[in-house]
Amino acid sequence: MKAILVDPAKNLVWSDVPDPVIKADEVLVDIHAAALNRADLLQRQGKYPPPPGWPEWMGLEVSGVIADIGPEAAQNSTWQIGDAVCALLGGGGYAQRVAVRYDLLMPIPRGLTFAEAAALPEAFATSYLNLFIEGHLQAGQTAFIPAGASGLASVAIPLAKAFGARVITSVLSEPIAASIRHLNADIVINSASEDPVAVLGREFVAGRPIHVAMDCLGGAALGQSLPFMAHGGTWILISTLAGTTTEVPLRDLLTKGIHLVGSMLRNRTPEMKARI
Amino acid sequence: MKAILVDPAKNLVWSDVPDPVIKADEVLVDIHAAALNRADLLQRQGKYPPPPGWPEWMGLEVSGVIADIGPEAAQNSTWQIGDAVCALLGGGGYAQRVAVRYDLLMPIPRGLTFAEAAALPEAFATSYLNLFIEGHLQAGQTAFIPAGASGLASVAIPLAKAFGARVITSVLSEPIAASIRHLNADIVINSASEDPVAVLGREFVAGRPIHVAMDCLGGAALGQSLPFMAHGGTWILISTLAGTTTEVPLRDLLTKGIHLVGSMLRNRTPEMKARI
Repeated sequence: MKAILVDPAKNLVWSDVPDPVIKADEVLVDIHAAALNRADLLQRQGKYPPPPGWPEWMGLEVSGVIADIGPEAAQNSTWQIGDAVCALLGGGGYAQRVAVRYDLLMPIPRGLTFAEAAALPEAFATSYLNLFIEGHLQAGQTAFIPAGASGLASVAIPLAKAFGARVITSVLSEPIAASIRHLNADIVINSASEDPVAVLGREFVAGRPIHVAMDCLGGAALGQSLPFMAHGGTWILISTLAGTTTEVPLRDLLTKGIHLVGSMLRNRTPEMKARI
Repeated sequence: MKAILVDPAKNLVWSDVPDPVIKADEVLVDIHAAALNRADLLQRQGKYPPPPGWPEWMGLEVSGVIADIGPEAAQNSTWQIGDAVCALLGGGGYAQRVAVRYDLLMPIPRGLTFAEAAALPEAFATSYLNLFIEGHLQAGQTAFIPAGASGLASVAIPLAKAFGARVITSVLSEPIAASIRHLNADIVINSASEDPVAVLGREFVAGRPIHVAMDCLGGAALGQSLPFMAHGGTWILISTLAGTTTEVPLRDLLTKGIHLVGSMLRNRTPEMKARI
């Protein structure tokens, strides 16, 4: 089959690779669409190798049609050849076919195209894992989800709102703030004119601490924000776009019983991914 | 009844206070012995007030004899008037009597005196909570428990060993290292002659990362040690004796899925304490 490989000059090259061979608990998917994630860009730069057992080429999520089913996968699921599905992958989506464990597939929601469905698994799984499994976000609590214009936030903010949480986000400019109004966040901080940490501090003083943060930025602001968390709150770091170190105020961590957690979806076990 | 209060000059004063009145789910304990914890010393200095609902005087753990039982406590337990017990308190142990929820009492282990039994609840509950409930320590994993000569470590190290873990601890001098040999830690770092962080780094390189830390020190060494943790490891901060800030390497936190957790026993709910 064909797959898109990265050559030494970092060009994407339409190349021949061996066809995938499914294991007993796997399903073969004829790929119709694959999504582009920041992780793919990092992988192209050689900074983010796929976890063991996955193809070396890029692509964390795809949609397509089931072409074959292993015996164990057939026994443990209701998948049929010809079903339209989307799937969360450890890698290998930039290709014509991929072998996936049966429990990492989802049906395509009614009314969505293959292209739309290919963009669902990574953002929804990342949001659900971090907000609800790692963070135990509850209705009535406050979630801080910075970088509101990211693809991830476009899923995470409505998801948190749908579960009854209050949402604070941040963006880089007023036009971007306007562009995400439909996501319906309760507070959109324009970080060009306001320091997000100062806003979180003001909210805390007003009795509205952060219960769960899903933070792709990190950097100095992370440590500065921890004092404004609720007792028992969880700060989940999912990327370090704003800096790779932070000064943590340990008395706040201690007396509030805060959990500071590093969380990546990609390196989770297939069992954990299936649970999500 | 009498209780030991702290006067404005920080003296302990044998004083008259109202007798405790038990609620339906409480038991009245005639106190025979109370233990002394570092938390009591902090409370005496005015730095560590008891959580809501507990007497204002010191004392986190006691032993004694049951003198009365509330109706709900009688219905939900097998406690009898006259039973010898020890108990975990939010405060109020430096007195003749205390009212305690029935599920915070434990029988006195066979062969122990009241004085010995009074020293059990806090150290065992702190160790169990952090190593096993927060840290999920498993047989074959490595626990880092610094300050090996502390009262807490005298319980935590044998407990971790009994559950099949490897234990690394640290002490301030060679004579202290000798004095805790009976605790049977696998590695005792004499921090007068060796930097504990360097030892953890050496262990990591040798394929023996830390899975769980129960750390009463904090400070710069905390952040410096995080790169030497195992994937999915948990670093539990229980006090900040060595410093109240640390620089956290966020890429290590992220890529290893490390949990950095602040954990205090005293401010947990009674339900959580009963679970421990």
